[in-house]
Amino acid sequence: MLHKAAGSDGALDAKTKELMALAIGIAVRCDGCIAFHVHDALEAGATEDEIVDTIGVAIMMGGGPAVVYGSAALEALKQFQLDK
Amino acid sequence: MLHKAAGSDGALDAKTKELMALAIGIAVRCDGCIAFHVHDALEAGATEDEIVDTIGVAIMMGGGPAVVYGSAALEALKQFQLDK
Amino acid sequence: MLHKAAGSDGALDAKTKELMALAIGIAVRCDGCIAFHVHDALEAGATEDEIVDTIGVAIMMGGGPAVVYGSAALEALKQFQLDK
Amino acid sequence: MLHKAAGSDGALDAKTKELMALAIGIAVRCDGCIAFHVHDALEAGATEDEIVDTIGVAIMMGGGPAVVYGSAALEALKQFQLDK
Amino acid sequence: MLHKAAGSDGALDAKTKELMALAIGIAVRCDGCIAFHVHDALEAGATEDEIVDTIGVAIMMGGGPAVVYGSAALEALKQFQLDK
Amino acid sequence: MLHKAAGSDGALDAKTKELMALAIGIAVRCDGCIAFHVHDALEAGATEDEIVDTIGVAIMMGGGPAVVYGSAALEALKQFQLDK
Repeated sequence: MLHKAAGSDGALDAKTKELMALAIGIAVRCDGCIAFHVHDALEAGATEDEIVDTIGVAIMMGGGPAVVYGSAALEALKQFQLDK
Repeated sequence: MLHKAAGSDGALDAKTKELMALAIGIAVRCDGCIAFHVHDALEAGATEDEIVDTIGVAIMMGGGPAVVYGSAALEALKQFQLDK
Repeated sequence: MLHKAAGSDGALDAKTKELMALAIGIAVRCDGCIAFHVHDALEAGATEDEIVDTIGVAIMMGGGPAVVYGSAALEALKQFQLDK
Repeated sequence: MLHKAAGSDGALDAKTKELMALAIGIAVRCDGCIAFHVHDALEAGATEDEIVDTIGVAIMMGGGPAVVYGSAALEALKQFQLDK
Repeated sequence: MLHKAAGSDGALDAKTKELMALAIGIAVRCDGCIAFHVHDALEAGATEDEIVDTIGVAIMMGGGPAVVYGSAALEALKQFQLDK
Repeated sequence: MLHKAAGSDGALDAKTKELMALAIGIAVRCDGCIAFHVHDALEAGATEDEIVDTIGVAIMMGGGPAVVYGSAALEALKQFQLDK
């Protein structure tokens, strides 16, 4: 239910909230969160460019380590695009 | 310049990126980041409801401590609204 | 010696301190800590239900990422039970 | 409701769960969490020695910064004892 | 004794280890650590420029929040210089 | 470019800044940062003893989890020495 809340629309739509959760997952270096939220952001209609922008904000707030985890997000993005 | 990048439009607009930075600031318990990003999100056109939704995502990803720092964000929001 | 201190009884018994260390390991997303402290909590006499409760507290304090790392703790628990 | 869950008995009693939440609060450097959970741990029947032991586990898992936040917990403890 | 170890010379001298501890304190957003380690780095012979460089590494590894805590380190530095 | 800045000399030389970045990487539990910064510290002329001292400071500031990530740094160090 925790994640259900993030997946529904409010003042912010589900896509924006999923991208936000992804940004946090990268900034706090949560490996297991990244593929999960990249997947759900794509499901909610996020484009590749929006995910790249999200990684950019995460790096701005997370510094060097977020570069590492942002790369994992890009990797996950590529993987989900190949799987389609 | 770091923060300038977040403040300009790309695939995501400046408002969304500021809200994202706010969400991360709450989730990583950065006291000094919170007032700063609430301020800039309002400047970029964020509504009160969007900030509340942002706090919600931060709490989902940050747990109990994010409740504490989310309250600080609400406090900052109220303050900026009074100052107008 | 650092971990020896946690493993002996004081006002709190060794089991409680090991569970506490596990809760922190989950909340701070320390992959390598989790199997280690699940193992030592079991050694100190913790039951499955107590470990599950511990994961619950960690999720309450750690949010979404703690769900990921809490799952790793459950996985480790299952593994140690099979190994017996 | 999040904190209600921690406050009720399960495999672990309310006191142990409050002490666990305090240990996490110290280890993750959540200033606002510390007084809150020291208060609730005392309410749930924790002794001074149990809180000191909890701080010890938090320092073992949180290192130098946890010494700083552990001191804040001791300060809060002393304050609540004076207020009684 | 924990901090004593950092304060003595080994392969790295005391000054370098104090600056390192300061860098970590900034990167992990430990308010109470910052004045403490700026003080001890100065005691160990660190120059203003070395502290500024240290803050730079912390920002590189800690991102936006480290800008906030790095400013606190500069503030502490200025204070200790006035106090001399 | 972010990492280029850390790699050049200033008040602190490149080696010291790389060791500092390694210390932070361990303290914040960034798996992917560790091999990277051990490698670059060696490239910048760091000795094995200086890396071990760096791990010591990281453990002092990061506690138990830093023991786990410090071991990963030692492992990476050994690997790079074998590769030479």
